[in-house]
Amino acid sequence: MTVIASGGSDFSEGSSGSQHVVELVEVGPRDGFQSIEAFIPTDVKIDIVKRLHDSGLRRIEITSFVSERALPQMADASALVAAARELPDLDAQILVPNARYAQRALSTGAVHFSCFISASERHNAANIKRARHESIEDYRDILSLVPSDGPVRFNVSTAFDCPFDGTVPEGDVYWLLDRALSLRSDVEVALCDTTGRADPVQVRKLFRAAASRYPDVRRWAFHGHDTYGLGAANALAAFDAGVRVFDAAVAGTGGCPFAPGATGNVATEDLVWMFDRMGVWNGVDNGRLVPLADRVAQLEGAQVGGRVRTAMVARARLCA
Amino acid sequence: MTVIASGGSDFSEGSSGSQHVVELVEVGPRDGFQSIEAFIPTDVKIDIVKRLHDSGLRRIEITSFVSERALPQMADASALVAAARELPDLDAQILVPNARYAQRALSTGAVHFSCFISASERHNAANIKRARHESIEDYRDILSLVPSDGPVRFNVSTAFDCPFDGTVPEGDVYWLLDRALSLRSDVEVALCDTTGRADPVQVRKLFRAAASRYPDVRRWAFHGHDTYGLGAANALAAFDAGVRVFDAAVAGTGGCPFAPGATGNVATEDLVWMFDRMGVWNGVDNGRLVPLADRVAQLEGAQVGGRVRTAMVARARLCA
Repeated sequence: MTVIASGGSDFSEGSSGSQHVVELVEVGPRDGFQSIEAFIPTDVKIDIVKRLHDSGLRRIEITSFVSERALPQMADASALVAAARELPDLDAQILVPNARYAQRALSTGAVHFSCFISASERHNAANIKRARHESIEDYRDILSLVPSDGPVRFNVSTAFDCPFDGTVPEGDVYWLLDRALSLRSDVEVALCDTTGRADPVQVRKLFRAAASRYPDVRRWAFHGHDTYGLGAANALAAFDAGVRVFDAAVAGTGGCPFAPGATGNVATEDLVWMFDRMGVWNGVDNGRLVPLADRVAQLEGAQVGGRVRTAMVARARLCA
Repeated sequence: MTVIASGGSDFSEGSSGSQHVVELVEVGPRDGFQSIEAFIPTDVKIDIVKRLHDSGLRRIEITSFVSERALPQMADASALVAAARELPDLDAQILVPNARYAQRALSTGAVHFSCFISASERHNAANIKRARHESIEDYRDILSLVPSDGPVRFNVSTAFDCPFDGTVPEGDVYWLLDRALSLRSDVEVALCDTTGRADPVQVRKLFRAAASRYPDVRRWAFHGHDTYGLGAANALAAFDAGVRVFDAAVAGTGGCPFAPGATGNVATEDLVWMFDRMGVWNGVDNGRLVPLADRVAQLEGAQVGGRVRTAMVARARLCA
């Protein structure tokens, strides 16, 4: 695969002859499944991860190590790590809240950690019952467990908007990144639109400013939600600003805890569609992914979204 | 209202202090309702148009004059024209296929015609059983009926993608516009993504090239569909290219005849949300529009879309 470059913004020149490459990070098995109440049998989860891999996805956030009492859906994390190790070239990303759970994940063979702290103090408190400065300590402890040149994803939750306080000032994002990146700068940083209320102007502006402020960041990533219909538009804005790594969830699984009944994560198959049409290489075959998305959408209790699945399944029915 | 300027592309500078203004053209009562089979009572239609106007929309494509046999939903066109004349400052746009129907519309007091020809020869034949050069003749006949400085909307259907032939070459769009604009150049031209399969790169490229090729065009407009989830992203791309007029349908009514069960027109409330968040003035109050969209979504047989309606109604329920 071509090296994924961050920075640069020659998008407006059009796609013909372009060498643009993006990496899609599938977060459905973690971010999507965690909001499904009914326990999804482990073998079903593993089969879905295998089929995601079959469709061409090479980075999948397969699970999280967290309190089983708080999140029983993730109780089979070890089994997922073991299964993921069997899949060739799969970069299995594991979400961990602190060193205790990171230690547990390491003991099962996990390598690539995804860490998170909210830019918004109130959201961090509500989400993990920690002050931001305490979460920085937790993050430092996780970093101490992994090789200093190994892969680390650092997620800035509520980087654009907080469900409690509305638009998040850029200064709150910088407060957090100043501290997190002083611990280690060459990590991948994702700016996350947790509520789906970011807009394309804000996305472009923050990524451009942050990329200029923190030049040593290894890669910038965008984690977007489609709750207000801007999943693809915000991803486009991030792409314009030079971002080349995008989180997405198959079938748009995930929901939105702040708007029950609304959709959450942008659907992977929708971003694949957009980048395919734009001539941007992403490595995923929607011919394989969409039937899987249709199956995931039928999981009991799944709150799903996306448009491409519906459109392509409808067309398939029309042409059958 | 500030004069709506086309051209310019200083969008990437961000919205703060920006004077950007867009005009949203509500096409639900025509493009949305025409795909609903069960006849919507005329008083319900009129009430919806009134409430659209109440929400701040000042241009509404309220109906079309077409064969009542082919499209019985539009049989009450005259009543809609009469009702629209009662609404202050409403620019009521009327779709007409040829001079015969334009004549009929004129006799009821219609002023602002919306005309259409497909860039794709095959789609034009399938849609209105005319060769493109014959449709140019029809368009010339319509123009002969209206004042030479009066408002005219010229829609290029399938400007990006044809359901039969796929991606439409730019040359096919130019073939059509060369002829249509030689009849009259200072009209509003909409490039329409009839299938929803346009992508942001294609949208930016075509609008920039067309605006440069046809400098006398009065205004450029984008008519987008959300069938594959790119309704907002493509509108953003058009905005980047200087477009300031956007068609949309309340509740995303419209469906997609080429993918039954999939959604069609981008939802007006979704574009209002996006432009509001971007700090772009659009004159529409989503606090009024979204409850109306929720009501329109419940019309018998309506195929609807959009995300903002679902998210805001869910939040309202949560907070109730």
